[in-house]
Amino acid sequence: MRRMKITESRFCRRFALDTAIALAPMALASGGALAAASARAGALGLVGGGYGELAWTQREYALALQQGPRERIGCGFITWKLDEDASALDWALEHRPVAVMLSFGDPRTYAGRIARSGAALICQVQRLEQVAQAVEAGATVIVAQGGEAGGHGMNGLNSRATITLVPEIADWLAARSPGTLLLAAGGIADGRTLAAALVLGADGALVGSRLWATRESLAPEGAKQQAVQTTGDGTARSEVFDILRRKNWPAPYDFRAIRNDLHRQWEGRIEALRADPAAARAAYDAGVTAGDFSRAHATIGESVALVRDLPPAEEIIARMTREAQALLGD
Amino acid sequence: MRRMKITESRFCRRFALDTAIALAPMALASGGALAAASARAGALGLVGGGYGELAWTQREYALALQQGPRERIGCGFITWKLDEDASALDWALEHRPVAVMLSFGDPRTYAGRIARSGAALICQVQRLEQVAQAVEAGATVIVAQGGEAGGHGMNGLNSRATITLVPEIADWLAARSPGTLLLAAGGIADGRTLAAALVLGADGALVGSRLWATRESLAPEGAKQQAVQTTGDGTARSEVFDILRRKNWPAPYDFRAIRNDLHRQWEGRIEALRADPAAARAAYDAGVTAGDFSRAHATIGESVALVRDLPPAEEIIARMTREAQALLGD
Repeated sequence: MRRMKITESRFCRRFALDTAIALAPMALASGGALAAASARAGALGLVGGGYGELAWTQREYALALQQGPRERIGCGFITWKLDEDASALDWALEHRPVAVMLSFGDPRTYAGRIARSGAALICQVQRLEQVAQAVEAGATVIVAQGGEAGGHGMNGLNSRATITLVPEIADWLAARSPGTLLLAAGGIADGRTLAAALVLGADGALVGSRLWATRESLAPEGAKQQAVQTTGDGTARSEVFDILRRKNWPAPYDFRAIRNDLHRQWEGRIEALRADPAAARAAYDAGVTAGDFSRAHATIGESVALVRDLPPAEEIIARMTREAQALLGD
Repeated sequence: MRRMKITESRFCRRFALDTAIALAPMALASGGALAAASARAGALGLVGGGYGELAWTQREYALALQQGPRERIGCGFITWKLDEDASALDWALEHRPVAVMLSFGDPRTYAGRIARSGAALICQVQRLEQVAQAVEAGATVIVAQGGEAGGHGMNGLNSRATITLVPEIADWLAARSPGTLLLAAGGIADGRTLAAALVLGADGALVGSRLWATRESLAPEGAKQQAVQTTGDGTARSEVFDILRRKNWPAPYDFRAIRNDLHRQWEGRIEALRADPAAARAAYDAGVTAGDFSRAHATIGESVALVRDLPPAEEIIARMTREAQALLGD
């Protein structure tokens, strides 16, 4: 057999990790405490720089460095937001992150300054056709994100699933850029799905939803509680919450979250919502204020299917690692 | 380690198979020759009774029995079409199929007569919420079909992906119906994805697209050739081809195929197409007549990503089995 060790993959060796897991840099959820806890557990802890709010990034990144091992702390950004204001990236690079992850846009614009800082570049892609650009940008790691993932990703007609995207990109890299590492993202939330990521040809996994649903995550407590009660059938991708939140995401992307009452009310009438969003936005804002997640959104992917508790992140990482290794052969 | 043998799973034992693979009963592709070749290779060969055309089913099922081992030959039907005319099912049951697979509708209507014939019932589901009904119908096997799959499946808002659906249903069955077997479907097309199916908790896989792209498949030769040239980015789910083909599929389902020129022309204007389909249908019909797959459809899923040749089915099944077993540990 080809022996796969979840604790000794190429990704582990490159970043001196104890397990082939990276925390997804989820905006407003992957704060300093979650990134540090992930790093202490042996994973790569990426702070969710997200929309590039400088003050948030400064506070949470400093907290991560305070609580976790510096050599496993990095940061992630939404590329097209950096095109508007890259000050949070520039601030982060001054603090020597081990890695910077870019998603949703052309990474080549920022590749030079990231490389000069000494940080490794991690590029997230959603389709095979984006891989060449990421390799051209000098990515050390490609993250292949399937549409199962929570939060932003490719919209319906363009969406790919993790189980086909990962082996296809693994083959592409093996033929054209064998030194580039590959992580699977989207649906990886327990030992089975982590082991599957390696079997599919990835060097590890980027874990979002499962670490969103932990004690250290900055996601609202009510959202986490709703997730524990939701089956995998209970999320959906659409533009509803981006319209409600006044986020002007570019066309090929939409957003997966729990398909709550307000989502169901508008999911079949996207154009009407876009044309006259005032009443729906008022309902959404009231839901956020009240902590009412039948109206406010809970950003989690299909792997909510496998979320049944809200333990500390270190427990999740240890559990996933142990269970995956048992499946792959101790 | 938990040792998983692709040649000795519960699914293999139940149907006396040499590998944990079932041929998906693809309408108009899984004819007698493909079902027989799959059965000779040690898999379960399900003839694609599909829309329930009696003459097609009679011809192809008889051919399967002639060319393959009877004990590994079964048949599959679209449940809601049986509600209109079940004569093909009744004919098949007289010929003692080892298994009958039902997809897309309430299987309980037909469970009694299938059980009385001695055939095992295989129920395909696309969401967790459908599993209880399949178990109530007495299913021997549940097929968990992710939206990656080619052909029909759940539409966008309701679609689930294989990598989260399989472990969630595995947990559900372990708790409530541990004797029920589970197959993964959608995206399973090589040794890696087959091994992943087992790691995720399935007892085997239902393989459609990869066996569609074989010598014995009844898919049009031009469609197969187009598939070999198409990456995993090149398919999409929508209602376009159902409208063009005058198929009145019920609301929660749509159809994945290669996203060809005619599809791209209409995919953003579904309501306009539905309101006035005449011109588009004429273009589609002309494409079918000419064997022009820029207009005619090629029914294959996202695992077209892993399709790079068109060998005999027995070669595909042997290759998938060998490569999966190497990954799982010989």
